[in-house]
Amino acid sequence: MSSTNVIWTLLAATLVFMMQAGFAMLETGFTRAKNAGNIAMKNLMDYCIGTVLFWIFGFGIMFGPSIGGIIGKPDFFVMSNYQYNQYVPTMVYLMFQTVFCATSATIVSGAMAERTKFSAYLIYSALISAIVYPISGHWCWNSDGWLAQLGFHDFAGSTVVHMVGGISALIGAIFLGPRIGKFDKNGKARAIPGHSITLAMLGIFLLWIGWFGFNPGSTITADGKDTWVEMGSIFITTNLAAAVGALTAMFLAWKKYGKPDVGLTINGALAGLIGITAGCDVVSPVGAFFIGLICAFIYVYAASIVENKFKIDDPVGAFAAHGCCGAGGTLLVGLFAKDGGLFYGGGLKLFGVELLGVAVVAAWTTVTMIIIFWVIKHTIGLRVSAKEELSGLDLPEHGLVAAYADFEPSVLTKSEDSYEARIAREAEAAAAVGTPAKEAAAAK
Amino acid sequence: MSSTNVIWTLLAATLVFMMQAGFAMLETGFTRAKNAGNIAMKNLMDYCIGTVLFWIFGFGIMFGPSIGGIIGKPDFFVMSNYQYNQYVPTMVYLMFQTVFCATSATIVSGAMAERTKFSAYLIYSALISAIVYPISGHWCWNSDGWLAQLGFHDFAGSTVVHMVGGISALIGAIFLGPRIGKFDKNGKARAIPGHSITLAMLGIFLLWIGWFGFNPGSTITADGKDTWVEMGSIFITTNLAAAVGALTAMFLAWKKYGKPDVGLTINGALAGLIGITAGCDVVSPVGAFFIGLICAFIYVYAASIVENKFKIDDPVGAFAAHGCCGAGGTLLVGLFAKDGGLFYGGGLKLFGVELLGVAVVAAWTTVTMIIIFWVIKHTIGLRVSAKEELSGLDLPEHGLVAAYADFEPSVLTKSEDSYEARIAREAEAAAAVGTPAKEAAAAK
Amino acid sequence: MSSTNVIWTLLAATLVFMMQAGFAMLETGFTRAKNAGNIAMKNLMDYCIGTVLFWIFGFGIMFGPSIGGIIGKPDFFVMSNYQYNQYVPTMVYLMFQTVFCATSATIVSGAMAERTKFSAYLIYSALISAIVYPISGHWCWNSDGWLAQLGFHDFAGSTVVHMVGGISALIGAIFLGPRIGKFDKNGKARAIPGHSITLAMLGIFLLWIGWFGFNPGSTITADGKDTWVEMGSIFITTNLAAAVGALTAMFLAWKKYGKPDVGLTINGALAGLIGITAGCDVVSPVGAFFIGLICAFIYVYAASIVENKFKIDDPVGAFAAHGCCGAGGTLLVGLFAKDGGLFYGGGLKLFGVELLGVAVVAAWTTVTMIIIFWVIKHTIGLRVSAKEELSGLDLPEHGLVAAYADFEPSVLTKSEDSYEARIAREAEAAAAVGTPAKEAAAAK
Repeated sequence: MSSTNVIWTLLAATLVFMMQAGFAMLETGFTRAKNAGNIAMKNLMDYCIGTVLFWIFGFGIMFGPSIGGIIGKPDFFVMSNYQYNQYVPTMVYLMFQTVFCATSATIVSGAMAERTKFSAYLIYSALISAIVYPISGHWCWNSDGWLAQLGFHDFAGSTVVHMVGGISALIGAIFLGPRIGKFDKNGKARAIPGHSITLAMLGIFLLWIGWFGFNPGSTITADGKDTWVEMGSIFITTNLAAAVGALTAMFLAWKKYGKPDVGLTINGALAGLIGITAGCDVVSPVGAFFIGLICAFIYVYAASIVENKFKIDDPVGAFAAHGCCGAGGTLLVGLFAKDGGLFYGGGLKLFGVELLGVAVVAAWTTVTMIIIFWVIKHTIGLRVSAKEELSGLDLPEHGLVAAYADFEPSVLTKSEDSYEARIAREAEAAAAVGTPAKEAAAAK
Repeated sequence: MSSTNVIWTLLAATLVFMMQAGFAMLETGFTRAKNAGNIAMKNLMDYCIGTVLFWIFGFGIMFGPSIGGIIGKPDFFVMSNYQYNQYVPTMVYLMFQTVFCATSATIVSGAMAERTKFSAYLIYSALISAIVYPISGHWCWNSDGWLAQLGFHDFAGSTVVHMVGGISALIGAIFLGPRIGKFDKNGKARAIPGHSITLAMLGIFLLWIGWFGFNPGSTITADGKDTWVEMGSIFITTNLAAAVGALTAMFLAWKKYGKPDVGLTINGALAGLIGITAGCDVVSPVGAFFIGLICAFIYVYAASIVENKFKIDDPVGAFAAHGCCGAGGTLLVGLFAKDGGLFYGGGLKLFGVELLGVAVVAAWTTVTMIIIFWVIKHTIGLRVSAKEELSGLDLPEHGLVAAYADFEPSVLTKSEDSYEARIAREAEAAAAVGTPAKEAAAAK
Repeated sequence: MSSTNVIWTLLAATLVFMMQAGFAMLETGFTRAKNAGNIAMKNLMDYCIGTVLFWIFGFGIMFGPSIGGIIGKPDFFVMSNYQYNQYVPTMVYLMFQTVFCATSATIVSGAMAERTKFSAYLIYSALISAIVYPISGHWCWNSDGWLAQLGFHDFAGSTVVHMVGGISALIGAIFLGPRIGKFDKNGKARAIPGHSITLAMLGIFLLWIGWFGFNPGSTITADGKDTWVEMGSIFITTNLAAAVGALTAMFLAWKKYGKPDVGLTINGALAGLIGITAGCDVVSPVGAFFIGLICAFIYVYAASIVENKFKIDDPVGAFAAHGCCGAGGTLLVGLFAKDGGLFYGGGLKLFGVELLGVAVVAAWTTVTMIIIFWVIKHTIGLRVSAKEELSGLDLPEHGLVAAYADFEPSVLTKSEDSYEARIAREAEAAAAVGTPAKEAAAAK
């Protein structure tokens, strides 16, 4: 332990916390004004619930003494004297891991935006923070976890944090079904533009800043010459992958759709950041360049396939970014790791372990999340009524007449409208763009 | 002194500076678009004025050699060779304390929002930074201050910073009177919705980040194993209190008003942060849990009482949050301190000292602020004219036609309106909701 | 090398990165909603392109072994074993310098806002990052650079970063010509209000935070008592200059234009920050006070002269701030440096060297930028068509129908408008305010 370890880890945790603000701005900006309060609340609540439950349950399960490599010994309220980390005191380590847990949980809010019951979301959020994330996290990040023992390498959480969040996002989106008006009567996807590209842009900058805590901070220590070199190297690989991800997505959009699309570029940076997270400490800057490039491709094509082929409505592309680039980035460690990667003559062993880890964690997340969302759906219900969805969730779920009370959203309500008039107006707008009959009927 | 002390303290100061951005976004978001430029300017000016005057006057008065425990020896422009702090050079300590001073000053802008003369506000801001805050601060935070000598414990400023700001806010709001249209003709309070919940949410995230400098940074040192444990512990208590504060306020609003209100939840997080500030270093995580919970209750009920019972218009709830939770959090140290707190068998001694400190600082702030606002009111005047208030302060006070020039605020003016038309439109809207005759007449 | 050096430099780099978010918010807020996506994209792309090209070319040219004091030895992809810095590993130093390079590049986007072709902007951005900035940077910041050898002092880049960016901004703005509607038929400048003063205010706060990395972080080391004192002193001088800059600009605007203008106050803070950057380590707090004051004067008058006398349209005042205060701040080192400054009995030698450095770097930037913009203008073209400008760049350049899709910008389009209707509406509005015939015709 040392002063520098403690400072480094705590300030890195602070930067990772900033990602909560980043996600809140990104997701709110990419969705509609009538749901802005609701989405921002979900982001805030993810963190609050995660803070409490990870402290009560999750931290012990994830980092406590391993029971057969499968699960840690619970340490309710983190009151034991067990030494969780060699570099920093337990409370420092708890803080750092709390912000990671909350990051995983908050990813889902974007994919389930604009139609999820607030109460249902709180329950999902509690379960991922207390159980799902810590258990697969134990396998990978507890030094006695069974995947860790096999040599699975996921330095800062492409799989542990992002893929878990991204797959949960996908399953949530499937259980919910698409937003009213997302697909026309022929099943063709329609763009539902976000209400503030500026906030989304602020969001990606805040996320990028946060990643400078997320990845380099995962050293936990700042001591020793090798660590200094590693810290600098992680900054560079992280930064390069993000920059190349943004550039690649932009040029790809330019070629594919004729314009350098703003939303895709923003998500390209995110794709690069997610992809480099697993291998940021073991790949070279050139490796990071290619990881950013490949992950931008993964993102752009995955987002299109999810929407156009599988007809799944993931409003911010959370699965394509976090799920696909999380998995992709982890697998790429098997190719680009300077020590053991296929491209550096290390053969396929590391790649195989990475593949196993990704597959197992994906399966775990899929199964538990199907159970969780199935139970929520068939008890308290997962989706708001069509009327509530059309009016926007801010009013029925939070009693918030308008997130931007001084301005008149254009499709949405006038402030003098009654609640019924608001719904009628939105239903009309939805019908005008060819909402399928079933959904339109539900809105009556 | 050490490298780590200096890095820690300076980066913590940087985080505390971020709270200025947080307050600016929170206060602007919770008020109306027609005053957005004005409110943001007040936040910026608080900091600029505080920076200069705390350097010229305040710092010496607060931290200089104590004259009888009452006031420090002035050190104009901080040019003496006095060693202000054992851990860091004087300029480092000055920087850290400057951002604290400015935090106290900026709290008031929210309570006085939407109706205070800009020039009057600048004078208030100068006086709190140069005189009011440093003197009570001297009593508590100068090791020779008379309250410090008695054992008064306010680690990072629940009382010294927040309660001083919160009480000043209350007195300012009382002197000003309510905004036109805040209370109807029967004296019933009406909600005046803020113009951007999204910015308010960004604000609370930035404030939360800033608090990771505010509380842990107040160690000033990062050296020694005990300090490392303390730093981690302060992060955890701070974070837990904030999370529990938000959760408690949300569930309380859900029960009390039927919906998980966004604004109350945001302010619940703030209440938890303010409440934990005094005892963040001496309470356990479980203690922090309860402090967050209690302070959220304090906030929700205090805000309601101030508005509905006392008919005071505090647009962002600054007194309920900073004043009441600042005082409350300080008193709770007397109950929850692991060493000396009532619940840990320490008897009532510490609680008594905390109570004395809170009472004395509250009295000091009340008296000085009544004098300051009284003098301002009866010389240059404290409140803008009814016409200026109706038009929004941006135009008459700053020559800013619109903070959001490309959008038409819904109640407010159309951009083609003349200044007179703008006022007439707003006066009509105010009359329609039952503004009392006296105020309506003033607006003619 | 030491843990503390590495932590300090990397976290400072993170803060400087935050300036990208700050510039994005400031520039977007100060311009119109119809171009918001475009401007934010330019800010993001500056950073992404700078990251890649500074790694491939710029870093070696700037900091590699000097060839005659003129240029560094290229180190493609930074793969050599050359020790670039004594305090930190190469990758740490590369990270720190990358964010500086991107800052210089991003300054230009504000001056060229609302009318520059996106593709042309990408090319400019690549060339400044790869060639222009690194070469003059070599002269000043490589210890073997010819200006460094003469004793030229520009601690954190008033000249190296800001003046280079500011002069490039001016030349870009001249080559482009003014926005349609900026000057009326009599050549009188008209205000084109920004679309979000709130975002601009957020921007200045983020920039100010970033400057706490920019200036103090430029020590690269955090070790040794002298360094600790210096770090604290730099924080104080930086903070004071910013605060005094804002206050001065505000009072100056109050006197000159009758109101404490919000935009000028924000830019006054920026002027102070830019001005203090060169001498933050060698001037006293009192010196910083005066540098902030003088630079605010420089900014306010330069902005007025550029617009009213030279009829140059620089939408955010980038040249007046970065160009003029960058140069001014560097020259003021010659007056205010405690060791060697004219006011401290050091004679005119240092001032002479500062003047030489400013003149030479200004000449270099002017010449190279004229070439770059000339070539771009006469090949792919620098400016969008009048139609595209009127519709806003978001739609034709990025396929973004509206950055704020749920709101109807007031002058701009209704969402039901066709592209042609949007242009007609804007052209009509431009004509109504007296756009010169030539520009109006171009818009047909």
